[in-house]
Amino acid sequence: MLILGIDPGVATIGFGLINADRGQAQMLRYGAITTPAGVPLSRRLLQIENDMEALIGQLNPDVISIEELFFNNNITTGIAVAHGRGVILYAAEKCGIPLFEYTPSQVKQAVVGYGRAEKHQVMDMTRRLLKLKAVPRPDDAADALALALCHARSYTSQLFTNQNVKQTV
Amino acid sequence: MLILGIDPGVATIGFGLINADRGQAQMLRYGAITTPAGVPLSRRLLQIENDMEALIGQLNPDVISIEELFFNNNITTGIAVAHGRGVILYAAEKCGIPLFEYTPSQVKQAVVGYGRAEKHQVMDMTRRLLKLKAVPRPDDAADALALALCHARSYTSQLFTNQNVKQTV
Repeated sequence: MLILGIDPGVATIGFGLINADRGQAQMLRYGAITTPAGVPLSRRLLQIENDMEALIGQLNPDVISIEELFFNNNITTGIAVAHGRGVILYAAEKCGIPLFEYTPSQVKQAVVGYGRAEKHQVMDMTRRLLKLKAVPRPDDAADALALALCHARSYTSQLFTNQNVKQTV
Repeated sequence: MLILGIDPGVATIGFGLINADRGQAQMLRYGAITTPAGVPLSRRLLQIENDMEALIGQLNPDVISIEELFFNNNITTGIAVAHGRGVILYAAEKCGIPLFEYTPSQVKQAVVGYGRAEKHQVMDMTRRLLKLKAVPRPDDAADALALALCHARSYTSQLFTNQNVKQTV
């Protein structure tokens, strides 16, 4: 199953594609879509949508795993990110790709096994699980790969749970 | 000049089209795009974008006047609205319509003449300026008409200021 992880944003949108099969995950590609500062938000959103559609068309994922928005301190940044996330969800829906959303703590739980893990622990486990020599750059791409892994692991446990249910019924 | 005012959202997006010419404004059309609750956000965003493109194609405005987001109490609602606003900005940019953004206090200042006016004062002045028998419903549509009026009045004063500048130079 091809899983495209997306770390949403406006200036930088991280993406990471993995192939998950029988508990094994292989990194296929990662990177970031970036938009220039000093350009009107609407123009940046147009670029993000166009780039997302092109990326989805090129990578042809089975599912998209995207971060749910959480607000800590900076509401202004959060609002901008929500604009970007809006057009990303739109692009995924337009392309007919099933979407799954995970909170940061769900990602930490799935990748590190602890919902309050530090960022560097998530990065390092992502690197190890995907058998990479170094943590991918930029951070947004590493976050996107962690999101893809989170879906792979959640999906596998869900399948496992369903099988258990079937067996006991 | 045809001005399309937009009150952004996800459940209800108000719109109002006016024709502004030499200090006179005439209401041409108003209404709301609505999306059903209980449907995934991505599907609602797809509908909003499609409906916005259809509306722009049908009304053919010269400019769009849209509310800037401001956060008071409910951050969760604000985040959802920002997702919707993202696809609306995207649709406007895709259709090549110039966008102008106004804060709620700019709208109050332009329509009522007082930046801290009450909502009902804005509604009533909108009704009077557009020579309507009643305040348009839903509120989102009345807000959208106020946004269109705000642009008409700001734009006129800007023209006036520029003329003054020219005369004095």
